[in-house]
Amino acid sequence: MVKALGRGVFQMEHSVSIASYAAVAGKKEGDGPMGKCFDRVEEDSHFGQKTWEQAESRMQQETIYHALEKASVKPDDIDVILAGDLINQCTSSTYSLRPFGVPFLGLFGACSTMAEGIITGSLILSSGAGKRCVAATSSHFSTAERQFRFPLSYGGQRPPTAQWTCTASGAVVLDTETKNAPKITGACIGKITDLGVTDANNMGAAMAPAAADTLTRWFKATGTSPENYDAIVTGDLGKIGGKLLLELIMKQGYEINPCYHDCGAMMFDADTQDTHAGGSGCGCGGSLLCGHFLPLVKSGKIKRMLFMATGALMSPMLVQQGESIPSIAHIVEIVSGKE
Amino acid sequence: MVKALGRGVFQMEHSVSIASYAAVAGKKEGDGPMGKCFDRVEEDSHFGQKTWEQAESRMQQETIYHALEKASVKPDDIDVILAGDLINQCTSSTYSLRPFGVPFLGLFGACSTMAEGIITGSLILSSGAGKRCVAATSSHFSTAERQFRFPLSYGGQRPPTAQWTCTASGAVVLDTETKNAPKITGACIGKITDLGVTDANNMGAAMAPAAADTLTRWFKATGTSPENYDAIVTGDLGKIGGKLLLELIMKQGYEINPCYHDCGAMMFDADTQDTHAGGSGCGCGGSLLCGHFLPLVKSGKIKRMLFMATGALMSPMLVQQGESIPSIAHIVEIVSGKE
Repeated sequence: MVKALGRGVFQMEHSVSIASYAAVAGKKEGDGPMGKCFDRVEEDSHFGQKTWEQAESRMQQETIYHALEKASVKPDDIDVILAGDLINQCTSSTYSLRPFGVPFLGLFGACSTMAEGIITGSLILSSGAGKRCVAATSSHFSTAERQFRFPLSYGGQRPPTAQWTCTASGAVVLDTETKNAPKITGACIGKITDLGVTDANNMGAAMAPAAADTLTRWFKATGTSPENYDAIVTGDLGKIGGKLLLELIMKQGYEINPCYHDCGAMMFDADTQDTHAGGSGCGCGGSLLCGHFLPLVKSGKIKRMLFMATGALMSPMLVQQGESIPSIAHIVEIVSGKE
Repeated sequence: MVKALGRGVFQMEHSVSIASYAAVAGKKEGDGPMGKCFDRVEEDSHFGQKTWEQAESRMQQETIYHALEKASVKPDDIDVILAGDLINQCTSSTYSLRPFGVPFLGLFGACSTMAEGIITGSLILSSGAGKRCVAATSSHFSTAERQFRFPLSYGGQRPPTAQWTCTASGAVVLDTETKNAPKITGACIGKITDLGVTDANNMGAAMAPAAADTLTRWFKATGTSPENYDAIVTGDLGKIGGKLLLELIMKQGYEINPCYHDCGAMMFDADTQDTHAGGSGCGCGGSLLCGHFLPLVKSGKIKRMLFMATGALMSPMLVQQGESIPSIAHIVEIVSGKE
């Protein structure tokens, strides 16, 4: 069972364990400063497949297999898989999951999917409906770029606010029994926030207000403050959105700078990798949560952290119709099992 | 808490109440045999908006407001909204929900979304994370047709197996306390099933095997049989898919014909409305569950039913790439509060 602290904010009475986690990434991500944290870096951006869409599905599938293997479980041991991605009709997930034969709940939270999956999975386990679930997500530069912006071969110029969609995937196995594992102890489900940003090349600015809103709701409902955390990590606000979050949350009276990290800003070396404001995509936060942060939590180097994945809930069509970009941010609180 | 009977199959120990339900539909649906069951039929297919996408969002929003009003609650009384739709990046839902200011979890289950939302919402309430939630979905002929098939003005000919995407929306308010209301007593989360159908104009055939699989899993795990139900209702298999389900489930030893209904087959008069194999879309099953079946459950005319919404989890791009259509079906068991 969980204890509601407010609308969409709750703490687990019996914590959920992150039994295992895995991350797979593409070559550019592997060449970046975080390159060594992934379970596998694939040099072939097609992942041995014919199309980019198949490549992304394959990457997500591999990531889930890695996570299952690290937890010493098989697909038949999983009660439900929660997954989603950026691609129309979430096909990177639905095609990825065909071989598993596991009950499936599809999510759409754009780049917030990793947090949304962990939250929903944790609540399902807390309800007693299952003992073990998987939450997974992925993004691929080549599927996202042609869907959201321009055909790759067009070679469109990117403004400095643009981010680079990561070719990366993250997956966790959650259960109710694994000892000495990172624990999920609480969460905050985000509200849709739209302050009127219409520039699809400045997603960080669109998402930062959602992040500030969710983080403020979390601090207030739980009575915590930034000092209680070794790390507060956003998924892909990038350098511009991250800076904006620091300003917005400061206005609410919270100084998070000392423990703040953004996976989008961490993923690439902007000077040498031409990635402008940083990495983005469901797989950006997903892969660095699973590849970098969860190992630090497991080893006890991080004792308590917030993972907040943000999502821009727009489509190219709605932006073309002149609509602004609704955004969302979900928080998961993760503590070291050693605590 | 809920009691797991198997992977993805469970019964509620404390049933979740469907405190209210609402359905809004377009003119063609209003002109059909089910036209009188909706809370409102809108003659203007643009719902007063400039674009089809805005029209669908508006319809979904209205449906949720109707449901909230019927439960005598306000958005601030809702702990979480679960919603999704067919449109790329689920924008019909994300734009619909901007004004509510309610914690939001986005779903993608294609036409299975109504069942997926009810299941996920019921589990969240059962976990203790909230007291009241909303599950909603929608579809619109004009948004879906141009996205999945051809531009409307192209006037493409439709094969006899084709279905007509309904302009319709359904929403329920779920809580843990309302008396004399239909109750959710169990559910079965579907597995992705793909028997190799590649014809995007024959979705019923693609989805029927998923429906047969989920229904078989439900009967076996719960020890029930078709005789235990006054109604077994699918969302949008249509006439062809529905017939196929009857055959497939008969092979498993279950004769469901006497209590079987398909919302897609019910929605239109195919002879006079030129809708071929029947209605389809998230809003098809969603609106008839909320407009037709739940009132029958509430009045006690239906004592126990299964609502099984099916979804084809493909995208036009993947079908163009030659991929077959993965499908899913989720079951919700609903009983009369009078029982």
